[in-house]
Amino acid sequence: MSDEISQLLGKEFKCLDKGFVRLVDVMGDDHAIVQAARVSYGSGTKKVHEDRGLIRYLLRHLHTTPFEMVEFKFHVKLPIFVARQWIRHRTANVNEYSGRYSEMKDEFYVPDISQIRVQSTSNKQGRAEQAFPPDEAVAIGKMMENSQSASYAEYQQLLEKDLAREIARINLPVSNYTEWYWKIDLHNLFHFLKLRIDPHAQYEIQVYAHAMGEIARAVVPHAYEAFEDYILHSTKFSRLELKALSSMLHKVELTEEYLSQFGLKGREAREFIDKYDLKIKD
Amino acid sequence: MSDEISQLLGKEFKCLDKGFVRLVDVMGDDHAIVQAARVSYGSGTKKVHEDRGLIRYLLRHLHTTPFEMVEFKFHVKLPIFVARQWIRHRTANVNEYSGRYSEMKDEFYVPDISQIRVQSTSNKQGRAEQAFPPDEAVAIGKMMENSQSASYAEYQQLLEKDLAREIARINLPVSNYTEWYWKIDLHNLFHFLKLRIDPHAQYEIQVYAHAMGEIARAVVPHAYEAFEDYILHSTKFSRLELKALSSMLHKVELTEEYLSQFGLKGREAREFIDKYDLKIKD
Amino acid sequence: MSDEISQLLGKEFKCLDKGFVRLVDVMGDDHAIVQAARVSYGSGTKKVHEDRGLIRYLLRHLHTTPFEMVEFKFHVKLPIFVARQWIRHRTANVNEYSGRYSEMKDEFYVPDISQIRVQSTSNKQGRAEQAFPPDEAVAIGKMMENSQSASYAEYQQLLEKDLAREIARINLPVSNYTEWYWKIDLHNLFHFLKLRIDPHAQYEIQVYAHAMGEIARAVVPHAYEAFEDYILHSTKFSRLELKALSSMLHKVELTEEYLSQFGLKGREAREFIDKYDLKIKD
Amino acid sequence: MSDEISQLLGKEFKCLDKGFVRLVDVMGDDHAIVQAARVSYGSGTKKVHEDRGLIRYLLRHLHTTPFEMVEFKFHVKLPIFVARQWIRHRTANVNEYSGRYSEMKDEFYVPDISQIRVQSTSNKQGRAEQAFPPDEAVAIGKMMENSQSASYAEYQQLLEKDLAREIARINLPVSNYTEWYWKIDLHNLFHFLKLRIDPHAQYEIQVYAHAMGEIARAVVPHAYEAFEDYILHSTKFSRLELKALSSMLHKVELTEEYLSQFGLKGREAREFIDKYDLKIKD
Repeated sequence: MSDEISQLLGKEFKCLDKGFVRLVDVMGDDHAIVQAARVSYGSGTKKVHEDRGLIRYLLRHLHTTPFEMVEFKFHVKLPIFVARQWIRHRTANVNEYSGRYSEMKDEFYVPDISQIRVQSTSNKQGRAEQAFPPDEAVAIGKMMENSQSASYAEYQQLLEKDLAREIARINLPVSNYTEWYWKIDLHNLFHFLKLRIDPHAQYEIQVYAHAMGEIARAVVPHAYEAFEDYILHSTKFSRLELKALSSMLHKVELTEEYLSQFGLKGREAREFIDKYDLKIKD
Repeated sequence: MSDEISQLLGKEFKCLDKGFVRLVDVMGDDHAIVQAARVSYGSGTKKVHEDRGLIRYLLRHLHTTPFEMVEFKFHVKLPIFVARQWIRHRTANVNEYSGRYSEMKDEFYVPDISQIRVQSTSNKQGRAEQAFPPDEAVAIGKMMENSQSASYAEYQQLLEKDLAREIARINLPVSNYTEWYWKIDLHNLFHFLKLRIDPHAQYEIQVYAHAMGEIARAVVPHAYEAFEDYILHSTKFSRLELKALSSMLHKVELTEEYLSQFGLKGREAREFIDKYDLKIKD
Repeated sequence: MSDEISQLLGKEFKCLDKGFVRLVDVMGDDHAIVQAARVSYGSGTKKVHEDRGLIRYLLRHLHTTPFEMVEFKFHVKLPIFVARQWIRHRTANVNEYSGRYSEMKDEFYVPDISQIRVQSTSNKQGRAEQAFPPDEAVAIGKMMENSQSASYAEYQQLLEKDLAREIARINLPVSNYTEWYWKIDLHNLFHFLKLRIDPHAQYEIQVYAHAMGEIARAVVPHAYEAFEDYILHSTKFSRLELKALSSMLHKVELTEEYLSQFGLKGREAREFIDKYDLKIKD
Repeated sequence: MSDEISQLLGKEFKCLDKGFVRLVDVMGDDHAIVQAARVSYGSGTKKVHEDRGLIRYLLRHLHTTPFEMVEFKFHVKLPIFVARQWIRHRTANVNEYSGRYSEMKDEFYVPDISQIRVQSTSNKQGRAEQAFPPDEAVAIGKMMENSQSASYAEYQQLLEKDLAREIARINLPVSNYTEWYWKIDLHNLFHFLKLRIDPHAQYEIQVYAHAMGEIARAVVPHAYEAFEDYILHSTKFSRLELKALSSMLHKVELTEEYLSQFGLKGREAREFIDKYDLKIKD
């Protein structure tokens, strides 16, 4: 493990008002992806590609198994309602704090007033851009905090009566913070990030996705750059959309020189020409 | 699909105070297990076993892949804290009601007074056998209900202000009911049932496990009987325990006749003798 | 199950020279996808979409969990080298014929002479378009057949000596046919089809993918159409390619009328305009 | 990573005549299991258990998620027929050498004459204890080698004609060696080892399982010891068998002193008494 990555271990990346993400351990780096790919392709790929080029080629062509050879282990503190969305990503290992064994802590998520917003009308599942007037937002935040305090006070009261922890906690709200260890391979982490960095994801999980994205960028810089280029900032056009696009295209002579101004070079330029010819123009 | 199973479809099995399990659809039955096994073993197993015998043989010997060939789809209504334990079983498909898209309903789990019990001292994660005095239990139940009503009233108030649903719901407690479709194969259902029928599982999830167990028994009676005999009611003895057992055993002449009084016959009796000889007595 | 689908059950779709795919059982149809989605979205989606529209919306927006609610069970006869590629799709259930329990059969894949082709120079993993001269191809095919016969004769000879089946079979070639039951949900089937209908997949597995695609089309016509539009015949453009595309686009006034000539209507047209504005033109 | 484990990295453990297992990388050790468990159980378990005791407790009680927090990456060279059994363990990551990209090598598994044995009559899937007479075994081995040489010579001939690699290789036998990177967590590795160290597994995969078992023992000595005690060398008794056992037991006064002679102490002794009382004697 490089010194740079070693120094990253254990460092808390603050998320929301009381949460965090910490990288606990990591197996592999950019080179581990290349190493695994070379086993697959045998002498076939030797020397043809340098590491960065091979990593980009692999991701562009959905040869994702070498990316499974890098593994991350995070320690995360997060509100229960975020945990409920997060856990839907099944290809990961999890150890969560248990409210049956231990007392839940007096820590609850209260949204920043900038996030206290009205229901979106265009997006049935999200909040609008429009915030509440500041004093109204402050009032809502205060109301939420009071309700959390009341819930926790009742929880404490029930525990003092010696009610079993597993029952006493059932009226704690989903804004209560929990913690877990979460371990995932890079391919599946990319899938998580793609869905959770997306602006349609709930803001509160986006915050965690961004933090893990920064950690991943530090650990596997080439792979993360490829992820941004080919997955995160790519756009998929449907069969119908490709026809529309086609009708809107100037008949440009697609030379490698022309394409190089956009950063498309060599094999990547030729692949673009193929897409253009085969899919767009027919 | 047999008439009997068709009649089971859609039937609500009540769980807890407001929840249920319903079988929405099922693929396969006992015969589908046999059919898949015969593909694996080819002519090797033809006619040697009748269906029940083959199913029992397969499960006893951990040949579990044919059990994956039967698939169940359930519709379940359950409190969020039960859902959080349930979802840890990753080899399943889930579609859950979304508090981002839709309003959460005014339905919360309130434990029956028989379940309002003190913390267990022997089992750090559970409740004791000992209930509270009835009037105290009633008071605790009432306190819980009041707190749920207050949470829901606040939720309604926030929605009326047009606060985004995805934020408004964060102070709803984990006793709130949610719903999902849950689809799983029989092998993984058995694994779920084994862990969740277990007395160490939280009582509230045991209730659902028992309901699904009854449904599974109706759909795959032979497989379910084998599950009870070889998994649910089996006991594993460790290397050390086997030595202890050995020292405590009478030197009985282990004839098939002797064993048949316990229901151990034929191959199953011979397998027992092998275990006894190889593991217990050496 | 509809009559149409019932009639499909058990029907052999021939693949390659001696293989097949048969649909053994299926759980769910287009409506099962809608049914599961409506549980997720609650009253939020009621009546807004008719079934086809909702299915297309779900797939376009990567809301893939409802597609996991449909399950297919296939019986497949296939050469071992195809099975070795196929099994890499892990999210499926498999029961394969066992060469330890039973004798392998005297059935081997011999490529049609149209498939006996030279190594591709552009595609390191595939064959070129260019076939061998017919007489040379025939000779190669014959040579392959002879070698298969010799292997099988030796296998028989070893079995006659009573050599254990699990050892005797180790010199049978990967062209030998095997059989399995393979069960998978629709979401994961789509993923399989996308990768294996692709022209970069080995021809021999493409044949099976096409057969299963036809079966899926019959069982879930709306979902399959959406799969073709949004996944199979879609094209993804990278961050760099989007810039190149942008520079090549005529400044067309993107009205809904203009887009409707390509089949892009309503929400789908507006989504295209969003992609065009946000990703292409900035 | 400890020095001891660092020295293990890359070391070849020979398997069969030409294969090997090498540990390429590992994340975590015994302490990582404890660390994850303590997150789950919170202050509840602090100081109650030392590491070894906690690990044993966890495995004995099927609290397996902390074992998923340790990850192994192996480089393995193995015959294709072994790879076909191995790959059935789906919860792992794999990058295999590709016969489409690269030439298969002239390396084939030839069983040692001690393994050239007759078909078992009691075990339909395996070989008997009984070997062939030495000269006959030698003759069979020689016959196998000749057939492998002939297959490889034909493969070379086809490649020289420039037949596409992906077709030319289809008549290579399943005794041909392949290579892969295989990454798996400790919980799933234990499951693999349990099934593949078992005497009913094919001998050739047992060899690899034993090699990986030795590596795991070096990396996680406490966890491996617990695996041997509670899983590998444990025996499960069915409901019927428990009744039979019960009738055969001396009525011994089960004191902790009596049990300590078998290594059963403290909590583990009390658990045994519970099993004895609840399951055996009623």
